[in-house]
Amino acid sequence: MNITKRQKDIIEIVKESQPITGEVIAKRLSLTRSALRTDFCILTGKGILKSKPKVGYVYQEIQEKKYIYEIMGPVVSVENNISVYDTILQMFAKDVGTIFIVEGENLVGIVSRKDLLKIAIGKTDITKVPINVVMTRMPNIVYCEENDDIVDAVKKIIVHQVDSLPVVRLKEDNGKNIYQLVGRFTKTNITKLFLENVVK
Amino acid sequence: MNITKRQKDIIEIVKESQPITGEVIAKRLSLTRSALRTDFCILTGKGILKSKPKVGYVYQEIQEKKYIYEIMGPVVSVENNISVYDTILQMFAKDVGTIFIVEGENLVGIVSRKDLLKIAIGKTDITKVPINVVMTRMPNIVYCEENDDIVDAVKKIIVHQVDSLPVVRLKEDNGKNIYQLVGRFTKTNITKLFLENVVK
Repeated sequence: MNITKRQKDIIEIVKESQPITGEVIAKRLSLTRSALRTDFCILTGKGILKSKPKVGYVYQEIQEKKYIYEIMGPVVSVENNISVYDTILQMFAKDVGTIFIVEGENLVGIVSRKDLLKIAIGKTDITKVPINVVMTRMPNIVYCEENDDIVDAVKKIIVHQVDSLPVVRLKEDNGKNIYQLVGRFTKTNITKLFLENVVK
Repeated sequence: MNITKRQKDIIEIVKESQPITGEVIAKRLSLTRSALRTDFCILTGKGILKSKPKVGYVYQEIQEKKYIYEIMGPVVSVENNISVYDTILQMFAKDVGTIFIVEGENLVGIVSRKDLLKIAIGKTDITKVPINVVMTRMPNIVYCEENDDIVDAVKKIIVHQVDSLPVVRLKEDNGKNIYQLVGRFTKTNITKLFLENVVK
């Protein structure tokens, strides 16, 4: 968002003294009100200031969330040695649609309700099948990183037709890639963000 | 979006003759350029016009989707006399996370992957249980209508913690409410809309 020096000054004045009329702002800047007309127009057009009739200008907080770390949810995971049945129970207990499988802090797999439903209706005894037999592993896990742009992660969710992405920190250990699990990014996060953006 | 008559005229002129300078637009309207300064500012601030330096103004297409019918997906449903097992198969065949249960054209129930997973891991023989025994029914179905505002439907999805809503047309038959199923509105729809809005 391009804002001139003068517009920044106006924003600062409004933040300090709101509500404040255009007249008073102009006086503070030793300018006429008409000289500031374009600036007020741009600032209200961009939604940074709001002009309240008979009251004056007020500042509107803009929180444009841009990165995954600003919006991601907490890690929801199980260890990779438990059964499919116990994983399903954990999924219900934590009320999530996708669960991550870890070895310590590191992501090694992912399963969705869809994967688990497929197995549950089969002939196998799901109390005896370890989750790591059925989970999706690298390189087939679609993930994102904390500092990724939210828009890029949303595109991944659409393109790969998944409901959520694990958020990882990439590391290397003896030439082997390690994916430290730090959060999750879901369609629910996006839905809430959508609401914040339109209501703003 | 409030736009004055004069701003509408400006938009029409730009649409016809873009790129076009502010000078030329002012001449066409028999006004001075400075008289239009505020209008140009509002129109570019709202993202309707774009001002290209040394070129002039161009029109930016805005498609603000607002109502459910503009974005809803097709009906995905099964008849209410099939088994839980067959419903799950249909859910996989149609690759949806929620399936609607109908009697003819009318919505009578809804089940999600979560509901079905819960039953699938139980002791019952899911090939013998009819889906209408386990589905959620009115008045517990959260739904929306075609002409509802998208934002209101998104709020319902968040508040009721569901992944999708059936879109219905309300009718009455002998004093009984009938919900004709006409579509579905999902978190995937919202995710795609989010992307359209931010990329715009």
